[in-house]
Amino acid sequence: MVVNFSIVPIGKGNSLSTQVAEVLKIVSESGIDYKLHAMGTILEGDWDDVLGLVKKCHKKILKDSDRVLTTISIDDHKGRTGRIAGKVQSVKRKLGKELKT
Amino acid sequence: MVVNFSIVPIGKGNSLSTQVAEVLKIVSESGIDYKLHAMGTILEGDWDDVLGLVKKCHKKILKDSDRVLTTISIDDHKGRTGRIAGKVQSVKRKLGKELKT
Amino acid sequence: MVVNFSIVPIGKGNSLSTQVAEVLKIVSESGIDYKLHAMGTILEGDWDDVLGLVKKCHKKILKDSDRVLTTISIDDHKGRTGRIAGKVQSVKRKLGKELKT
Amino acid sequence: MVVNFSIVPIGKGNSLSTQVAEVLKIVSESGIDYKLHAMGTILEGDWDDVLGLVKKCHKKILKDSDRVLTTISIDDHKGRTGRIAGKVQSVKRKLGKELKT
Repeated sequence: MVVNFSIVPIGKGNSLSTQVAEVLKIVSESGIDYKLHAMGTILEGDWDDVLGLVKKCHKKILKDSDRVLTTISIDDHKGRTGRIAGKVQSVKRKLGKELKT
Repeated sequence: MVVNFSIVPIGKGNSLSTQVAEVLKIVSESGIDYKLHAMGTILEGDWDDVLGLVKKCHKKILKDSDRVLTTISIDDHKGRTGRIAGKVQSVKRKLGKELKT
Repeated sequence: MVVNFSIVPIGKGNSLSTQVAEVLKIVSESGIDYKLHAMGTILEGDWDDVLGLVKKCHKKILKDSDRVLTTISIDDHKGRTGRIAGKVQSVKRKLGKELKT
Repeated sequence: MVVNFSIVPIGKGNSLSTQVAEVLKIVSESGIDYKLHAMGTILEGDWDDVLGLVKKCHKKILKDSDRVLTTISIDDHKGRTGRIAGKVQSVKRKLGKELKT
């Protein structure tokens, strides 16, 4: 399955890049395939691996903040893999032109 | 923590109430505090209990559908409980008037 | 269409009930049908009315905060109305038992 | 403001790439800065331009489907622009290493 997630500490100031960097440190060392974009991080894997990783990141940010909002969107398409790149390629192919990605 | 979630099977027709009923059967028998509303279901509990329940519901819907989209929003406020009712009460108190809930 | 939304100011402290009360003041005076729950507010109406109201609330919270995160989920089912109550009733009917709502 | 959105028609089959291609045709011809990723499309601009574009896409998909689910996440940081690339660069700089983007 492919998962998009974001983790936001409340009440820690306007900038969130320090906390996102902490999350991406954990993600990039996890061995799980990922992709960072401006509005979240995409992961691909099975439920326990992916949700286990999101839990680890959530708990890390909760160490330095009293309130954390985490959003998780899951697209689970049976038997499909390689979809972080594949879904985007499929749209380009259907449209027949290059897109900003 | 308080969690809102929804589970949507793709390609199974326009009506989702049958699948939502299957989810609510599992939720209402789980022992975890919940509240159903028009755009999802709210749960309250710790990470493993709540995410374990969402996983069980997601896997159930995936049995009869090839593709399932699940969205999970988590509000984790340290040391707080009873927040499914409490958060709404707090807003009413601040505003000083009744609200549709 | 039925819409769930939430508006979160970043860096204004751990409690959000004051800002949610400001939002619900605007919503409850708008004439648009709504329902407050622990994880957001549900609205029902057409695109311009509902998104116009969310914009008004978002801009209000932005007056006192440098950064605001707003999430909007839209369920647009052609020709359906009365769905804030109707969707929940439909699930209860399918399941054949009472649920916490 | 930076906005992530996705539009999902219900009951039109398991594959969504045809509909996403229709959306990206509209987005790529709009003149608004965008970025497609595996779990949605990111836009940057002011409220009326960006939400107007999302409305146009939503209405397009609704022409061929009786039910459409659209999700919109807004990050509105006063006075900031160029954030589709900027937010990702800021995380890389904080972390001091390359990331998959």
